[in-house]
Parts: sequence; structure tokens; C-alpha cells
Amino acid sequence: MTRVLIAYAGDYGNTEKMANACAEGIEQVEGMTCLMKHADKVRLEDMRDSDGLIVGTPVHMGCMDWRVKKMIDTISSGLWMQDLMNGKVGGVFTTGSGYGNAGGGCELTMLAMLNSFAELGLLIVPLPKMTVDFGLGGHHWGPYGRSASPSGNHVGVSEEALNVARVHGANVARAALAVKGAEIFKAE
Amino acid sequence: MTRVLIAYAGDYGNTEKMANACAEGIEQVEGMTCLMKHADKVRLEDMRDSDGLIVGTPVHMGCMDWRVKKMIDTISSGLWMQDLMNGKVGGVFTTGSGYGNAGGGCELTMLAMLNSFAELGLLIVPLPKMTVDFGLGGHHWGPYGRSASPSGNHVGVSEEALNVARVHGANVARAALAVKGAEIFKAE
Amino acid sequence: MTRVLIAYAGDYGNTEKMANACAEGIEQVEGMTCLMKHADKVRLEDMRDSDGLIVGTPVHMGCMDWRVKKMIDTISSGLWMQDLMNGKVGGVFTTGSGYGNAGGGCELTMLAMLNSFAELGLLIVPLPKMTVDFGLGGHHWGPYGRSASPSGNHVGVSEEALNVARVHGANVARAALAVKGAEIFKAE
Amino acid sequence: MTRVLIAYAGDYGNTEKMANACAEGIEQVEGMTCLMKHADKVRLEDMRDSDGLIVGTPVHMGCMDWRVKKMIDTISSGLWMQDLMNGKVGGVFTTGSGYGNAGGGCELTMLAMLNSFAELGLLIVPLPKMTVDFGLGGHHWGPYGRSASPSGNHVGVSEEALNVARVHGANVARAALAVKGAEIFKAE
Repeated sequence: MTRVLIAYAGDYGNTEKMANACAEGIEQVEGMTCLMKHADKVRLEDMRDSDGLIVGTPVHMGCMDWRVKKMIDTISSGLWMQDLMNGKVGGVFTTGSGYGNAGGGCELTMLAMLNSFAELGLLIVPLPKMTVDFGLGGHHWGPYGRSASPSGNHVGVSEEALNVARVHGANVARAALAVKGAEIFKAE
Repeated sequence: MTRVLIAYAGDYGNTEKMANACAEGIEQVEGMTCLMKHADKVRLEDMRDSDGLIVGTPVHMGCMDWRVKKMIDTISSGLWMQDLMNGKVGGVFTTGSGYGNAGGGCELTMLAMLNSFAELGLLIVPLPKMTVDFGLGGHHWGPYGRSASPSGNHVGVSEEALNVARVHGANVARAALAVKGAEIFKAE
Repeated sequence: MTRVLIAYAGDYGNTEKMANACAEGIEQVEGMTCLMKHADKVRLEDMRDSDGLIVGTPVHMGCMDWRVKKMIDTISSGLWMQDLMNGKVGGVFTTGSGYGNAGGGCELTMLAMLNSFAELGLLIVPLPKMTVDFGLGGHHWGPYGRSASPSGNHVGVSEEALNVARVHGANVARAALAVKGAEIFKAE
Repeated sequence: MTRVLIAYAGDYGNTEKMANACAEGIEQVEGMTCLMKHADKVRLEDMRDSDGLIVGTPVHMGCMDWRVKKMIDTISSGLWMQDLMNGKVGGVFTTGSGYGNAGGGCELTMLAMLNSFAELGLLIVPLPKMTVDFGLGGHHWGPYGRSASPSGNHVGVSEEALNVARVHGANVARAALAVKGAEIFKAE
């Protein structure tokens, strides 16, 4: 079996809902399985023994939740040192109150997680605009579950954002299958 | 007089409307004047002889319009070489169809322009969330004039986005006045 | 045949040298061919009919050369509109005088090009640290040809940076082969 | 008195050395004082009652140390909510082994911290290239204390990087003095 690990942190259940939707998408792809864990619980082996990685976070002050960063610092840095993740695949998603009508920090939050992914040698899976409901839940780096309207009313993540997350999960799963066994990166 | 240069590029008039609103905001501040030019027309002296700089652009493929970049490469690089902009102030704004509900690239677009500003030694003026209508036209790095609804319908920049741009112009103007004459940066 | 397009701009030949090294790397991979063009010359069909894309640029004022951005705005935006690049692969490289000892803007320059790649739906190929000579010519998003020493003396791109570029070209080529024919992205 | 808070995290003393150099620079400026604390120890009042903020971090997997992010999430988010930091000034610095010859993630690390600063409404103080020893310890967003040579040998932060940090501290201090009392940001 080919496996994607979903690691996430969150406060009010929105990020977990998005993670669940990604998981559904992954498991719709034949031959794929999913391991989903809160960032606090992820162990080095969970990451090492997966073929792909999806990390999700609420946007907190323009960057990822500190618990996600703690996981990256304490777990993935060890894998980086030993070059154990090269050639796997990775994707990201965020949730956010979306204060302001322009994402409120979700882009840099995604880029910050992807900066870690690049160091790990993961092939990055973006999110094409052709994705269903992209207009309401998409960003080119991954799904965005906006949990408030521009006027500030809390609305929770929408069905559309969950649809986008489902497709993203399946995309990452298909990417993991496509590159599995291929030796893409060589030292020279 | 203290002067802020507004340089912009654009396709359908939305960015120009936002630039006009910034200009209004600047000129509401006592002692301030504004010079507004299309990026294609900006000369080195325009930038050198201003106390502050606002650059606005549509978001094109996740970064600034190439004409804005051309201005930065051909005009501001000469000023950078000679250290002639250190200690002035700068701000940015963007417009965009906002494809996707998450800004569609506006954050990295702003950061890319600000990367140039930092090299020039400009103090960067962000946009606080307390700004009127921030929820509909704001981003923490500057105004965002979203010209389409999440469903993709073209709507033009809203009155709210123009209000945000007006306040941003005034903020940059007040920042220019506050630091004028202060020798903030020293070589050692 | 599977083809990677290398598009680049540059001033003094350093970026072209790096592009040539990438091309060598691509052509070392069986079944691969390379099309290399200055950004000014790239046509829509060049990009559309390639399986992978490498874009290289000098770092100018903290972002890509304006001619690279012009290509992205005028060529790749049309492909984005029609969803014609989804599922291909992409990589980047930069050259720079490296003013300061910290890359002098190369990271954001790479991220800005990658922001466009993500919109196009390209799988992003990073550069693992295990790459030969990474310590002298590598960055996790791609090769970096530093053309000056930290003290400012012009030195040209080093043999080590060219080695890194060669490996990066081969990595992107192998990634293009691995995903060719796989339908990674679906709309729902 | 006008005060700048320096908050930092670190592992082997390099970041603390850089923080100490910033502190020296701040205290060389007449009328200025400095409060320096490890990120774990910073309280909301420390930040609220300061006129400026310098945050320093090692680069860990391409972004800030998780303890710095924890401080931002748990301390500065409360100040953001209440709009209590608008119009103060901020600067950043990083240390890093500098794996690769291109900063190894320091630029995005700085931008990620600055994304939080922008949300707080801080005027951002960059680092001009005219700064003494910029070529060996500078980046346009702040000092960079590279603790290893490109070949990977640990060397600790250099005297030059500490010089840059000293000047940066003084720059931030002078900026704090220049804008103190000026009401730069208004709601409308």
C-alpha cells in the first residue's frame, strides 16, 4: 500500500474537518491509504514510512500554528539530516478567519510550510484552478477553508472548501503513486 | 513640501482607481503632495526626489505586472547602487480578480515588491486591521482591490477597497513626515 | 521524446552558463530532450508542447528579471487560462552577485517564479541537500550561481554551481518522465 | 525612556550573541533602553510596553524556531486583537548554519516573522547595504549570523555579523525614536 500522512493542528475543529476531507480524497484513490494525526502526536516513523505528506494549519499571525512548526523542527529535521524524505510528495492546506478579503496571511503560511518541504526534497503538489469549487475554497498552493465572511461573521468551513480539500487529497495520492519507485533525485 | 511618488501599472483601470484613492489620501495630509505616474513613465529623479514611495500592481500569475518589475530593475536599481533611498518610506497595494477566495497571489506579489523596497532601505508601512473597511479591501501589507467575486463575476474595485486605499495613502504620508530629517540608518 | 523547456534571461552570461549546465543534465537522461531559449524568444507553443519547465533568472532587486516576468505574463498566463500545463513539472534556478552572505534575495526570487508555476499546476521539483556541491551552489528550491564573493569581488559562477545545475536539470528530467501520462490532477 | 524589546530563541548561543550585539547597538543611542528576553519568557506586557521590537531566530527547516512562533501565537496575537502595537517599529535577524551558499532559508524565515509584524501594524526597519560588514553578515531584511562555512565547517557567528547586528539594533532604536508620538495610523 502507498500511504499519505496528514498532520494538522487546530483550535475549533475547522482544520480537522479539512483534514478529514483530504483523507476521504486520499482513500478514494485505489491502492492508497491515509494516516491522519494531530501534529502533537506525529512520530518520526509516521513521516518516514509514508509516501506523501499533507500538512494543514490554521493561519495564526500570518504563519503556521506553532504546534505544526514544533513538529517540523523536532520530527522532520531528523529526516532531513539523513536525506530520508527525498522524492516523496507533499501538499498543504490552511484554514483561517480570512480577516480582510485577501486571504489574511494564508499564502505566506503555505509558503513557509513548503519551504520545509523543499528542504526535505518533496515534490510539491499545487492545486490547479480547474478544481471544482476552487473559487470558494481554493488557493494555488492548496485548499483554504475560510471560516469567516469578509464582514467578520464566523461561518465555519464551507462545503465547497471541503470539496476542494477532497480533490487535493486525491491529487496528492495520485502524485504519490506516480512517483513511487522512481528514483528522481540523484546526488550527481 | 514632502512628496510621495505613486507608481503603478494596470490593464482595465482598477489599479489606476486605487492609485487615485491613495493620492487623495496623501493630499489630505497637511504639508504633503503626491506625484502619480504609470510605471512606464517613472524617471530616476521622480523616485530620488520623493520622500516616500507607493507601488501598486495587478496580480499577474502570482507576482507583480512585468512593467512594474521593469521599473524596479531599470530605475530603482540605480538608486540602490548609490544608497540614495535609505530612510525613506514605502507602501504597496494590489488589485486582482481574486480567483479563489484567498487572495489569489496578492500576498507574494506584495512581498516581492517589498523585497525591492527593503533593498532600497525603505521603512515599510503596513496596513493595520483597524483600518475602515479592512474586511473588504485590506491585507496586512496594503490595500487589495478585488475586482471579481469568488464566483468569478467581474465587479470592479469596491468603494470599500478605495476607502482602504485612501487611508493607506494618508498613512504612508504621515510616516514620510514623521521620519523626514531623522537619520535612521547609519553605516556603523 | 519527453522535453524540458529552459527559459532564462541574463546580463553577463552567468545565467546562460547555468542554463547550459541544466540542459546538459537533462540530456544525460535517456529519452529526454531539451529546448533552451532566452525568455524574450519563448513562444506559447514552446511551453505548451514541453513536459517540464525550468526557468532561470538573475536576482534583480530581490526578484526575477523583468524579462522573465514579461514572459510569464504574456505567455504562461494564456496557458493558465486554458488549464494546459496542469500536471507537468517545473524547477527554477538563479544567479546573483550574492551581495551579503545570505543569498541577497535569491529565495524570494525563486518563490516568486514558483508562485506562477503553482498557478500553472506544475509539480515543483526542489533540490535536496544530498546533491553534490550543494554547499557551494545549492538552495533548497534550486541551484544558485553566486557570481561574487561575500567581499564583493566578481568571480563568475563556479564549477560547483554548474555541477549543481547539471544535477537539477537531470532531476527535473527524471520527474517529467515519472509523471508523464499519469493523470494526477482531476477537477473533482 | 524609549524601549526596544529583543526576543529570541536559540540552541548553541549564536542567536543570543547576535541578540546581545543588537542590544549594544540599541543602548548606544541616546534616550534608548533595551529589554532582552528569551522567547519563552516574554510576557504580553513586555511587548505592549515597548516602542520597538526585534525578533531573532535560528533558521530551522526554512522558517523560525517553533518557540518564537509560540510566542507570536500566544503573546502577540492578543495585542493584535486589541490593536495595541500599531505604529511601533520592528526588525528581525537570523542565524543559521547557512547550508548551501544562498542563505539556506533565512529570507523566508525573516519574511514569516515580518508577516506577523505587518499584522501588528509595525513599521518595518530593513537593513541597507551601506551597513558596515554587510557583505559578510547582512541581508536586506536584517543581520544574518552564518554559523558555518559553505563547506559545512562550524565557525560560529563572525565579528562582522555581530557588527551588522550592532548597527541594526541602533537603526531600530533610531526609528523608534523618530516615530514615537507620531500618530501614523488612523482608522479613516
